[in-house]
Amino acid sequence: MLRRMLCVSYISGMSGNTFGKSLVLTTYGESHGDQIGGILDGMPSGITVDIAEVQRELDRRKPGQSSLTTARTEHDLVRFHSGIFEGKTTGTPIAFSILNKDQRSKDYGALEKVYRPSHADYVYDAKYGHRDHRGGGRSSARETACRVIAGALAGLVIPDVTVKAWTSAVGPVELKTNWQHLDLSAVDSHPTRCPEASVADEMAAYIAHVRDEKDSTGGVISAVATGLEIGWGEPVFDKLQADLAKALMGINAVKGFEIGSGFAAAEMLGSQHNDEIGANFETKTNNAGGIVGGLSNGAALELRVAFKPVATIGKEQNTMNSEGESVTLAAKGRHDPCVVPRAVPIVEAMIKLVLADHYLRNLKYTR
Amino acid sequence: MLRRMLCVSYISGMSGNTFGKSLVLTTYGESHGDQIGGILDGMPSGITVDIAEVQRELDRRKPGQSSLTTARTEHDLVRFHSGIFEGKTTGTPIAFSILNKDQRSKDYGALEKVYRPSHADYVYDAKYGHRDHRGGGRSSARETACRVIAGALAGLVIPDVTVKAWTSAVGPVELKTNWQHLDLSAVDSHPTRCPEASVADEMAAYIAHVRDEKDSTGGVISAVATGLEIGWGEPVFDKLQADLAKALMGINAVKGFEIGSGFAAAEMLGSQHNDEIGANFETKTNNAGGIVGGLSNGAALELRVAFKPVATIGKEQNTMNSEGESVTLAAKGRHDPCVVPRAVPIVEAMIKLVLADHYLRNLKYTR
Amino acid sequence: MLRRMLCVSYISGMSGNTFGKSLVLTTYGESHGDQIGGILDGMPSGITVDIAEVQRELDRRKPGQSSLTTARTEHDLVRFHSGIFEGKTTGTPIAFSILNKDQRSKDYGALEKVYRPSHADYVYDAKYGHRDHRGGGRSSARETACRVIAGALAGLVIPDVTVKAWTSAVGPVELKTNWQHLDLSAVDSHPTRCPEASVADEMAAYIAHVRDEKDSTGGVISAVATGLEIGWGEPVFDKLQADLAKALMGINAVKGFEIGSGFAAAEMLGSQHNDEIGANFETKTNNAGGIVGGLSNGAALELRVAFKPVATIGKEQNTMNSEGESVTLAAKGRHDPCVVPRAVPIVEAMIKLVLADHYLRNLKYTR
Amino acid sequence: MLRRMLCVSYISGMSGNTFGKSLVLTTYGESHGDQIGGILDGMPSGITVDIAEVQRELDRRKPGQSSLTTARTEHDLVRFHSGIFEGKTTGTPIAFSILNKDQRSKDYGALEKVYRPSHADYVYDAKYGHRDHRGGGRSSARETACRVIAGALAGLVIPDVTVKAWTSAVGPVELKTNWQHLDLSAVDSHPTRCPEASVADEMAAYIAHVRDEKDSTGGVISAVATGLEIGWGEPVFDKLQADLAKALMGINAVKGFEIGSGFAAAEMLGSQHNDEIGANFETKTNNAGGIVGGLSNGAALELRVAFKPVATIGKEQNTMNSEGESVTLAAKGRHDPCVVPRAVPIVEAMIKLVLADHYLRNLKYTR
Repeated sequence: MLRRMLCVSYISGMSGNTFGKSLVLTTYGESHGDQIGGILDGMPSGITVDIAEVQRELDRRKPGQSSLTTARTEHDLVRFHSGIFEGKTTGTPIAFSILNKDQRSKDYGALEKVYRPSHADYVYDAKYGHRDHRGGGRSSARETACRVIAGALAGLVIPDVTVKAWTSAVGPVELKTNWQHLDLSAVDSHPTRCPEASVADEMAAYIAHVRDEKDSTGGVISAVATGLEIGWGEPVFDKLQADLAKALMGINAVKGFEIGSGFAAAEMLGSQHNDEIGANFETKTNNAGGIVGGLSNGAALELRVAFKPVATIGKEQNTMNSEGESVTLAAKGRHDPCVVPRAVPIVEAMIKLVLADHYLRNLKYTR
Repeated sequence: MLRRMLCVSYISGMSGNTFGKSLVLTTYGESHGDQIGGILDGMPSGITVDIAEVQRELDRRKPGQSSLTTARTEHDLVRFHSGIFEGKTTGTPIAFSILNKDQRSKDYGALEKVYRPSHADYVYDAKYGHRDHRGGGRSSARETACRVIAGALAGLVIPDVTVKAWTSAVGPVELKTNWQHLDLSAVDSHPTRCPEASVADEMAAYIAHVRDEKDSTGGVISAVATGLEIGWGEPVFDKLQADLAKALMGINAVKGFEIGSGFAAAEMLGSQHNDEIGANFETKTNNAGGIVGGLSNGAALELRVAFKPVATIGKEQNTMNSEGESVTLAAKGRHDPCVVPRAVPIVEAMIKLVLADHYLRNLKYTR
Repeated sequence: MLRRMLCVSYISGMSGNTFGKSLVLTTYGESHGDQIGGILDGMPSGITVDIAEVQRELDRRKPGQSSLTTARTEHDLVRFHSGIFEGKTTGTPIAFSILNKDQRSKDYGALEKVYRPSHADYVYDAKYGHRDHRGGGRSSARETACRVIAGALAGLVIPDVTVKAWTSAVGPVELKTNWQHLDLSAVDSHPTRCPEASVADEMAAYIAHVRDEKDSTGGVISAVATGLEIGWGEPVFDKLQADLAKALMGINAVKGFEIGSGFAAAEMLGSQHNDEIGANFETKTNNAGGIVGGLSNGAALELRVAFKPVATIGKEQNTMNSEGESVTLAAKGRHDPCVVPRAVPIVEAMIKLVLADHYLRNLKYTR
Repeated sequence: MLRRMLCVSYISGMSGNTFGKSLVLTTYGESHGDQIGGILDGMPSGITVDIAEVQRELDRRKPGQSSLTTARTEHDLVRFHSGIFEGKTTGTPIAFSILNKDQRSKDYGALEKVYRPSHADYVYDAKYGHRDHRGGGRSSARETACRVIAGALAGLVIPDVTVKAWTSAVGPVELKTNWQHLDLSAVDSHPTRCPEASVADEMAAYIAHVRDEKDSTGGVISAVATGLEIGWGEPVFDKLQADLAKALMGINAVKGFEIGSGFAAAEMLGSQHNDEIGANFETKTNNAGGIVGGLSNGAALELRVAFKPVATIGKEQNTMNSEGESVTLAAKGRHDPCVVPRAVPIVEAMIKLVLADHYLRNLKYTR
């Protein structure tokens, strides 16, 4: 018998929690369940893993690193459950998890029925027939902690590659210096993760000001990757810049992506934009951002990512509740006035996942 | 540096020619082979297909539409080989092809050994151990004709959705009018595909000027999609904006992608950027660009895509040949001074493929 | 011969730990790590989950259920970490794990250097550059516990479907009764999971005899699924029987698969084998086993799976060690003389995963 | 607005027309459209392709090779459209097609409303809301011609591997000789593709007898692959035997699959079944069929596939038509009394596709 199509009572499930083709990350976990975690499948065997180094990466995204970030203190400790034996990868899937210790659901009780503007509350309700009011459930940025862990592991697959990201703009405050003239080793020495001290201080002052106004601000993260081989990326749909864009646009709060010249290219002439090929096939300029025809060309990978301001603010806003009543909302929960500094390791992690995946996809067929 | 693989004789193959999860497009074909084409798998059965309408979409991207585009005249005629019977889809894979009629390989003979700046020649050589000097081979934008055909079919899966793209900038000439005040039905009435006549004329003049200078220019395409249901997109990696970014960044010459407020969000305050929720859960503003938490929220989808100037120009440039000798190059082949007008239907096609795919992925589980 | 890759130091990783397209299971864990587990992605939201029922399924495969199985007692307790809130699925990925309590690595110390005949030891060494001598590592059948958990959840997606498997042969002892004349509710009432008491006793006696001989025996599991809709399965490569075959041949120790008439079909005439279509389009016979053209036809799904005898036996065998020396081996570890009774819930679980996946893949496109 | 769930008018589409992970085949085409074909993506570049050799493989499956097969004469000529340049693969997707010349739709007109027993007519109607009565549409075995072409290309990726299949049973006539004692180069010298002349003659006589009775018969194909490296296959779900089973069970009319000892293993003791490891780690027996733990072990891959008798027979059968009326049917169309001889190259092709895919998936990570 053909199935009776009665009216909907159950609703479609998610199935977008997996990333990558050869190096495959699947994550799980809600912001206020007992833990979050993931499985990284496809890691080659025999790679030495320094777990303390992975933990250091994870610590870079945690809240409470300075007065500029939320007071929430997540004591995130990574735990590995498989795929690593006596300090080396075994080639089996690597499972990891982080306990959710500091949950404070009561902070969210008040929001149970209110749809927060520019949050996923309402659309989750519509899609899944329910929402987890305890801090966003699956839509919480807490999920990105798993990406940082996986990204740190992915980096071990491509040891010749260096990936560095930094805060290049916070609200109106912009770092204009070209990356070649920045000391990228200094990124973490300032809470804003801006490597130029004077600009970093301006950014910090602006964030503090915004915080005091019970408001939030957006910003921009720039990133550079060096040491890529020529030829990573797969024409035509899996071009390297396409997979990077998907990886980075999938981070919470990201609104824009540029590779190389980005939007500036729209105003340029071909004679200005073309990267002339010089000795050793190196290009004199890098408007391409390290990618031509969808493939890495050996030059530095250069990209920029725009973040919107945090949606949760203390200022009063008009919105609706699930009864369809107009209400006002002024968030009391703990939140960041600017997520950009904490997002730097997340951007690096997603770039590493894409590059390691394409490195493995490009393994040579040798006879 | 190129990876040392002394023993290599064969080289890794491409496997990135497939796009989509539920509605799956795979394309093939080189610019100068006998034909190009593709297979669209996952089309529901019973959908009426107006082949003339598909051909009209294809005609919108063809060269030679005006003095502003290349003189090459591709008589692209779509042919369907399966999946359509008596004017309706059958649910089987839809195969289509276009013959490559006007090949003129001789135009390219001169380039056999020269690596064209900002083209894929050199990286293809490095990755595949050969290059097709006859107009770029697989890296040629000709492949996008297949995307236009598939996109036209994808649009039939979501008849309630309207997708409109237009040229919003050419070089320094920008269309500043908000889309709500544009007559989007007028997009095709001007060769530049800018719906505002006065700005369109400026753009045309600029393109003509650039062409006469044997140069090329970049530009921006804006797009809007209306009629989406709430809830398309799959957390966490397959967020709707992530899949749109991958789809659009995968188009030749695209350097940047923005959803909603885009890079402008970086300078905004949360209190400015948040879209307050009003009556009927409609938002008063749309900085989100129609997506929150990775899911469509029922508002208009708004995005922008930046294109670099065409790399092939008549001006003389310095580069290298495969012997490693410095040479100068002034392209003689037929080429566009600005691809943006012809790229409008390609942008619409990729958006339709993403939306139809996510519509099908979101099919409800009904009992 | 092993492929010559003189420069190899790292070795390729696994990436086959994911199963399904719409309902996607990824598992992890070695037999002697701290835990095993998995993530089930794509579960629709709003489905009530009875965790005790899942635990009951898990208990059906555990060792130590009778004198016929290994004395190892795994206290397997399923723990859920995400995707279930207040007793219902949320539509987010469901993560689960089982602690590895009773590890006894010392049992295996002796085997560190010995390659056990018909075990994966040697090929894992060759592929991954190492082996986990502690009971087979990833190749251990312990991994199937995760399949049982996921299968129990999958069954909730298709509540109208009943899947029943049973032991239909152990060594030479065969159950010849047609399933329509069996009381399938009695399967668990006998330790052999054979629903016909007299045959079950014969099987038990044979297993006991084999155990006393320090030997092991193979067997056959038959399964039937009823309540399928018409049309599950996707031509041409993802035919329902093809995905069932992959699912069941992927269970440790399985050597053969049959759908409907199976190998007997080879000796039949078309006029005998064809299932004539009678009233209400029901077939009088079911040689098809419930599938025609790769799609379910509404009749009962009928299949059989052959298991080889357990490779680990107490009898002395000749083999080699990693030094390439000939040695003899007589296993001392705890092992089953026949895995078939414990494999019954695993077979049911894999069938449920395939059917739920294809049910979701077949969701109708409704307008 | 949330989507209105009205009753079904359109029906879900197929999306199972793609096979493989690293070497990816997508096929299209109905038995009576203008052509069938496919795209093979992931072929490494630089591989020499002898198109005549591919054509020879294709000719092995064509009808009309002898009086034992259908009188239909398909003049199948393979045409390549991309991915091969100057006799070598380029690394781009390889598209190929075959024209459907000899269509004779009139043969099928009579069947328009009749559901043929053990054919896909009725389930296609139910799933897709229509059927193609012109010889089975997509469910026709004609689609397998594309598999033969792709399999011939796949074989070029693994030149050290030899794959040989042969007819080992037709109805009650069985070839009992062990393959090591067969001259597998003689397979094509007899129309039945049985390499032992005396048994081949018996088979031919039986097929002729069955044909004269307007009936059909099933059979068994055995296959052996040698030259595999150790370690092909990916634990846990993509075990080599699992992917082989999926590949072969997906061929029309296949009802059973065995690897190595197969169903015979069920009756064996561990002490009989275990393959003792001898000098050079070679096993003395090969009950494993060349696979342990899901990975190739360097021994010969040995498998068997059971085919049901052709469903289309001249004998009169009872069935129903789309009006739900009981009718009798005696096929007049041209059909094979036994497909097994023609299926031999299809079995070889699917094995090659699986082995080449797993070879590429197993490429070493070399530093």
